[in-house]
Parts: sequence; structure tokens; C-alpha cells
Amino acid sequence: MKHRKINILVITHIISIIILFEGLFMIPAFVVSLIYKEHISADLIRAIFLTLGLGAVLNISTRKSHNAEPGVRESLVIASMGWIILALVGSFPYLVTGSIPHFVDAYFESMSGFTTTGSSILTDIEALPKSILFWRSLTHWIGGMGIIVLVIAIMPFLKITGSQLFSSEASVVVEEKITTKIKYVAQHIWLIYVGFTVLETILLMFGGMPLFDSICHSFATVATGGFSTKNTSVTDYSPYIQYVITIFMALSGINFTLHVLALKGRYKQAWKNQELHLYLKVILGVGLILTFILYSSQQITFEKAFRDSFFQVVSVITATGFATADYLVWPIQGIILMAFLMLIGACAGSTGGGVKVIRHVISLQYLKRSIRRVIHPNAVFNVKYNNKILSTPQISSVITFIIIYYGVVIAGTFWMMLLGNSWPTSFGSILTTMGGVGPGFGLVGPASNFSMLSDGSKYLLSFSMLLGRLEIFPVLSLFTNWFWRT
Amino acid sequence: MKHRKINILVITHIISIIILFEGLFMIPAFVVSLIYKEHISADLIRAIFLTLGLGAVLNISTRKSHNAEPGVRESLVIASMGWIILALVGSFPYLVTGSIPHFVDAYFESMSGFTTTGSSILTDIEALPKSILFWRSLTHWIGGMGIIVLVIAIMPFLKITGSQLFSSEASVVVEEKITTKIKYVAQHIWLIYVGFTVLETILLMFGGMPLFDSICHSFATVATGGFSTKNTSVTDYSPYIQYVITIFMALSGINFTLHVLALKGRYKQAWKNQELHLYLKVILGVGLILTFILYSSQQITFEKAFRDSFFQVVSVITATGFATADYLVWPIQGIILMAFLMLIGACAGSTGGGVKVIRHVISLQYLKRSIRRVIHPNAVFNVKYNNKILSTPQISSVITFIIIYYGVVIAGTFWMMLLGNSWPTSFGSILTTMGGVGPGFGLVGPASNFSMLSDGSKYLLSFSMLLGRLEIFPVLSLFTNWFWRT
Repeated sequence: MKHRKINILVITHIISIIILFEGLFMIPAFVVSLIYKEHISADLIRAIFLTLGLGAVLNISTRKSHNAEPGVRESLVIASMGWIILALVGSFPYLVTGSIPHFVDAYFESMSGFTTTGSSILTDIEALPKSILFWRSLTHWIGGMGIIVLVIAIMPFLKITGSQLFSSEASVVVEEKITTKIKYVAQHIWLIYVGFTVLETILLMFGGMPLFDSICHSFATVATGGFSTKNTSVTDYSPYIQYVITIFMALSGINFTLHVLALKGRYKQAWKNQELHLYLKVILGVGLILTFILYSSQQITFEKAFRDSFFQVVSVITATGFATADYLVWPIQGIILMAFLMLIGACAGSTGGGVKVIRHVISLQYLKRSIRRVIHPNAVFNVKYNNKILSTPQISSVITFIIIYYGVVIAGTFWMMLLGNSWPTSFGSILTTMGGVGPGFGLVGPASNFSMLSDGSKYLLSFSMLLGRLEIFPVLSLFTNWFWRT
Repeated sequence: MKHRKINILVITHIISIIILFEGLFMIPAFVVSLIYKEHISADLIRAIFLTLGLGAVLNISTRKSHNAEPGVRESLVIASMGWIILALVGSFPYLVTGSIPHFVDAYFESMSGFTTTGSSILTDIEALPKSILFWRSLTHWIGGMGIIVLVIAIMPFLKITGSQLFSSEASVVVEEKITTKIKYVAQHIWLIYVGFTVLETILLMFGGMPLFDSICHSFATVATGGFSTKNTSVTDYSPYIQYVITIFMALSGINFTLHVLALKGRYKQAWKNQELHLYLKVILGVGLILTFILYSSQQITFEKAFRDSFFQVVSVITATGFATADYLVWPIQGIILMAFLMLIGACAGSTGGGVKVIRHVISLQYLKRSIRRVIHPNAVFNVKYNNKILSTPQISSVITFIIIYYGVVIAGTFWMMLLGNSWPTSFGSILTTMGGVGPGFGLVGPASNFSMLSDGSKYLLSFSMLLGRLEIFPVLSLFTNWFWRT
């Protein structure tokens, strides 16, 4: 095993490129401020220059490294630090324009955006300038694409154990250079990502939603983020709009490599995916049960029960977090189903969050086999996924992830309680931020927001979002001594 | 793999023997009622005849099977059904004497006794006749011995995967007949079990506790049960008595095969046990932290903070559940430490409950190795316990147990909420009954009891005690289809 010093120059260089891109992404928000003749245009220009300036200084001072390729450890640092700095720089527009004056709030909102969580500290969303709302939704869209590039292109390339599982198309290009791989993702997955965004925008406008809101909601849907431009989220829009958003949330929770297969006409191959089947079964099953619960307990029509049910089920399992109903006023069965969906999560290789369906598919098989061996010690012990037998390291990476995920949820809940929060708020806020959902339980339900929490709680939840989004390992590995040993 | 029909006759025959023994164990309670000239003596005789009669009828009608040895599947049924029937028959004295008139309450109290949990539905313990209090404490003592026989003798004999881990002395006799093995446990471990009980009784009497209370508290300590004969548990006894109980609780939470080694003078070998080390470190570490927390937050002397701290730490980690303080009035840090200790549990092969320290030792190593492999895919991946490399099935049995344990805690919490209980009460009551501790959080803290819960909640918690006591697998396996397939 070869150890070498971590190359900080390479890390800084790549992060400087991320910052430069982020600065360019701020320009559309500036354009929005010009269109709506907002007085904060000058502030936004300042934020853009600050960002580009910072990026340029870092880039130039590390230009010697621009040909060096980062190793596994550098990539892990870049993934963690990248998101932290993305959120930090992303808070400039909020701070510079005074839209969100307190640093911790701006950082929380920015991290919530880039991790596509969708938890908000805003009490009156509609009071914000349109350019800032646009930037807020755009952070989702940037973050959603970022995570797909990371999971589908970069992590399997680094041969991080088990990561190949999550990218069914990865095998095609797994032996290539990382630049080739990113190019592949860029060509195929960008097409679908942008395509979904444009298609949803058109369909929303067709239902009478203004262009601005249509774009923002599409950004938040495709990234399974959940920031809305309205105080009441999607509640006051027409049933047609709610159905359109439900369908696009569901699509965005599917592994994007399956969309690539479908785009190429290989429907049959895409349809054989085991994770997709369970994902659809859970949505259908829980959606129908919930429809029944809501119809029998609320004074609403069957159509409304059906619509509310499937909207909330898809919104929570994909970790989007849009709302058309406050599930905290539902019967307790409904609330428990929501917590259950937060634990399940969407499909791997999608923009969705949580533990991911594939890990449940694998761990359930593992547990069944393991219990069976109590009675039949000599029984064959194979865990399969998509008809392929998994290796022991692949299985252990999945099992380890699940144990650590639950361990972090428990530890995080305790920590939130130490910070003075109640049991339901502590559990609900950690579960929803780890899973990237958005609304939680207790004080932070769908009809509320995170503004009343203490600064300490907000920093902890921002970290929880990061841990959940990066699926724990890259962040956790930075805290081990063998990572830093040279 | 050979499949055959489950032999119900053998199962019934062995259960009939358990019932007969249980009837004999009721006789001392009857003697107590005679000594204290209680009017319920006649009722107790009736309960004894009912029990012995039931046992005799079942025994005689299945006498053809008295030479047949139960297989793995029969043994698993016997373990589960045995405890359910033990609790059922054990509720006769409560019901027949009218001491606990409602069936669900009597069954809950009985199951709590035999599983050595110590959760109670009694609101005024001291109002009960002494004979009934004696029976109540005796159920702990019977249950404690029962679990040691099961874990140290029967489960390793059945070669249930991973069970050998929990019985460091098991190798000596693992190849013998089960009757030899039980005889070995009977000779060596009974000696220690009875010895601890007698020694503690003498030491408690030396501190001024009456004989009757000394015996009852010793039963509850050695079995890590937690039923007291006083409404205020151990709170009102002298510091000396509290220290004596602390020490015996700690001893009872250690693997009894290590006590056997010590008895034989093989101290060095006993001391090398990895589980024992972590167990003592956790008690010492958490005890000192808690002493500091209590001393700095409460208006008490350092000695009292030290005593309260170590008493509660040892009581909760060993899953005894005696109390000298109400931890629900402590600072939140103290409450969280208690929840943490409930999750840890005592040592395997002891009478204590919970996940068990050994499983944490193994799973922490597993998780560390697994995370390490993210960065060093080719690193050696060995998990060791007591310097021996564990096999994959052994590791997977531990990992599976932990995942299912947490899964059951989550599912049970949700179920309790469905039955109308609050979040803290739901989580606290499931955690404490699964772990066999006794008091929980929310409404069921150390200063309270389980009487106000609904009947449905009481049945669910009784089942939770059983699941926790039998360490889930034997009960769970009965619900699988391959168990019943012939």
C-alpha cells in the first residue's frame, strides 16, 4: 500500500474551478433582477465579482497543478470541502443583498439549496426579491447535477467500494479516464436533466403558472430540492399542476442511468432494474394505503385524498419536500408512513436522498439469508442484485452504510436534544435533513420552517444535510487517522 | 438438507416439565404466606394445584416422547413458547389471589418478571401481600437462570450461528450431549448464581435490611431484574446498601462463564476477555462523566452524586432497573446517557439485557474495517474477538442482530404511537422492555409505572420483553416460511 501526502494544491485548484462556475451561475440571477428592475442589482454584481475574484485568485495561485489528477483521498476532500465552500459562496447573494441578513441563516439556506434538501429558515418567502428566489431555486439545480456527476461518474471511477452498484451504465465507461467519464455523463445525463427541466416548465406554464415560477419549481423538482416561490408551497396551485409536479418528482427519483437507457430505446433493459420495481411498488402501495386513510378521516373528496396522498408520498420518498398538505395534522398512521418513507429514500443515481431503495433491497436479502442460517447453517448464502451475485465487500459497504446512517440519526437526535430541542423536533429535523427531504416533525413540519431554531441547531442541521447528501463515507473518512497517515 | 415435521409432542412434553417446575417454585411463596399468616394462603394452594395439575396432564399425555431429543426447530419453539407459557402460568398467583385482578396486568407483570425486565404496572407495591411480592421477585430469579441455561448451554449446543461466541467456556463441553452440557452449567453456574444470591442477602442484612427484603432484592439483583419490594425502589435505603447492590448488579452483568473461570482460579484467562474490558470501561467512563454532570447541576454532595451516578449507570447498563434517583429530572445530558446505556446492554452470557457489549465490540471493528476499505480497497479485512479471527457467518450473525434490533425498536416505537402514546413514551417503553431494563422515558420513567398504558400497549410491551430476552432470532424464525416447510 502506497501512502503519500495529500496534495492540497490540486484540491484548491479544483475547488477554485467550482467557485468560478458558481460565480457564472449567479449571472442569470442578476439578469432576473434587471428584468424585474430590482434595486439589488448592484449588490448582486458585487456578489458575482466577489465570487469570481475569489475563484480567480485561488485558481491562479494554484495554476501549477492544473494538469495533476486528484487521487482517491484528494477526491474525497474535494467532495466534502467542495460542498461546504459551494454553500459558503452561495450565501453571498443572500448576505450582500441583505435578503437573509444573518450569516447562519444564509449558510443554512444555501446548504439546504445545494444539498437539494429544501429545509428553509424563511418565514415569508414571497417577500424576497425575485432574483434571490431564482438564485435559491438555482442552487437546487446546481446541487442536483453535482450529486449525479459525483455518484455516477466520479465515485465509481475512484473504485469506492460498492459505488459501482449505483450506476448501472457505469460499466460502459468505467475503464476510461475520468474526463471521458464526466464527458459521457455531461452528454447523456445533462440532456435528460435539462430536458426534464424544460419539459416540466412548459407543462407548468400550460397549466397557467407564470414563466418565472414554472422555471423555479422545475429547478426544485428535477433536483428533488423542494424550495418553492410561494409561502404555501404547491398547496394553492391547481390539481393539474400538482399532478404534473408529482410525476416529475417521481421521475427525478429514478436512477438517471435508467433514463439514459430509455432514451436510447433500451426500455426492456431499464425495466428489468430491481430497484426501480421496489421504488414503484412502495409509492403505489403507500400511496393507496394513505389515500384510504385520508379519505376515511378527512372531509375531502376521493380525488383530493388520492392527489394529496400521492403528492406527499412521492415528495417525501424522493426527498423533494414540496407540500400540498400538512401531514402533521393527519392521523398518526399517516405521519408514521411519512417517517417510514424518509427512511427508505429514492433510487441511487438520482437526485433524491435518503438511504436509497437499492440498499434496502440488498440489506433485506442479507438479513433474510442471515436469519435463515440460524436454522440451516449450511444453506447457500448468496445476495443478488439484478441477477448478479454480490461480493462480500459490496455487501459490507451497503450494510455498513445502513448501520452508520441509523447511528448518525440517533446521535444527531441526541445532539439536537442537547441543544434544547424536543424529542419530535430533534428526531424529525435530523431525519429530514439527513434524508434531504425538507420538512420534518415537531416544530419543523410542512406548515412551518426552521427559523426559530438556535444557531447551534442550524449549524448541526447544515452538517447533517452535508453528511446525508455525500452519503456519510466521504465526510466520515476525513475523520479517521488512516486517511491522514502519510 | 433434511427436513422433517416439527415434533409437537416433544415440545409439549418439555413445556410440561417447565410447568411442573414452576408449580414447585410456587411452594416457597406459599410458605411465605404461612409465615406472615396471610389470608391468601388457600388461594395460593389453589394456584399451585392448578399449575401442577396442568403440568401433570400435559406431561402424562405426552409421556411417549420423554426419551426423544428435540431438534433445532423444536428447541426454538420451546424457547419462545416456554417463556410465553411460563409468564401465563406465572400470572396464576396474581390472578387467583386477586392481587392483580386484570389479566393483562397480571400477564405483563409476570412476563416482566420472567424476562428479568422489571417494568411494573403496580401503583402501590407495598400494599401487596408479602407472599405475592416474594413470588414476583422469584420470577426474576427463575427467569435469570433460565436465560443463562439457554444462552450458555442450549444455544451453542444447537450450533446456532454465532452463539458459541457468547460462551467462552462452551468449547469445553460443546461436543457432549445436551444433558451433559446442562449438567455442567447446573454444577458450575448454579453454584455462582446461588452463591451471589446468598452472599448479597447476607451483606444486605448486615446493612440492616430485613431478611425478607434482602432475599427479594438479591433475587432481583442477581437476575438483573429490578422488581423491588418498596414503592421507592432502593431510594430510601442507606448508602451502604446502595453500594452493595451496585456491586452485585455489576457482577451479574458479567458473562457467568468468566465467573466460573475465576472460581477455578483462572483469573488471568478471565481477565483477558475483551468484552469485560469494554464493559468496565463504559461503566467507569459514563459513571464519572455523570458524577460530574450531577454534582455540577444538583444541590448534592459529591458522594451522593458519585453514588447516584454509578448506581443508575450500573442499573441501566446491566438492565436491572433499580432506581435511587429519577433520571427524568436530570439535565438532558444525563437522560441521553441513560438511553445510550440502554442501547449498549450488559455482557453476553450474563442475566443482563440489551444488545450486549460483545456485539458492539465486533460491529465497531467491522464498521471501522469497512470504512477503511473505502480508501484502501485492498487492505486486510479481519475482525477479531479475543485474538481470534471471526468467520463471515459469525460476523454476519452479529451485524444482522444489531440491524434487526434497531429495526424492531423503530417499528415498536411506531406501533406504540399508533396505539396513541406520545413519542418519548413510545420510544422509551420499547427501548426499556426490549433491553429488559424496566423504567423508560416519558410517562414510564423511574418514578412512575406502566399502569396507565392501554391494554394493547401492555400486550405489545410484553411481546417486546420476550423478543429482547430471547434476542429476537428464535422468535423471529418462527414467523418465516422456511421454518415450517417440511
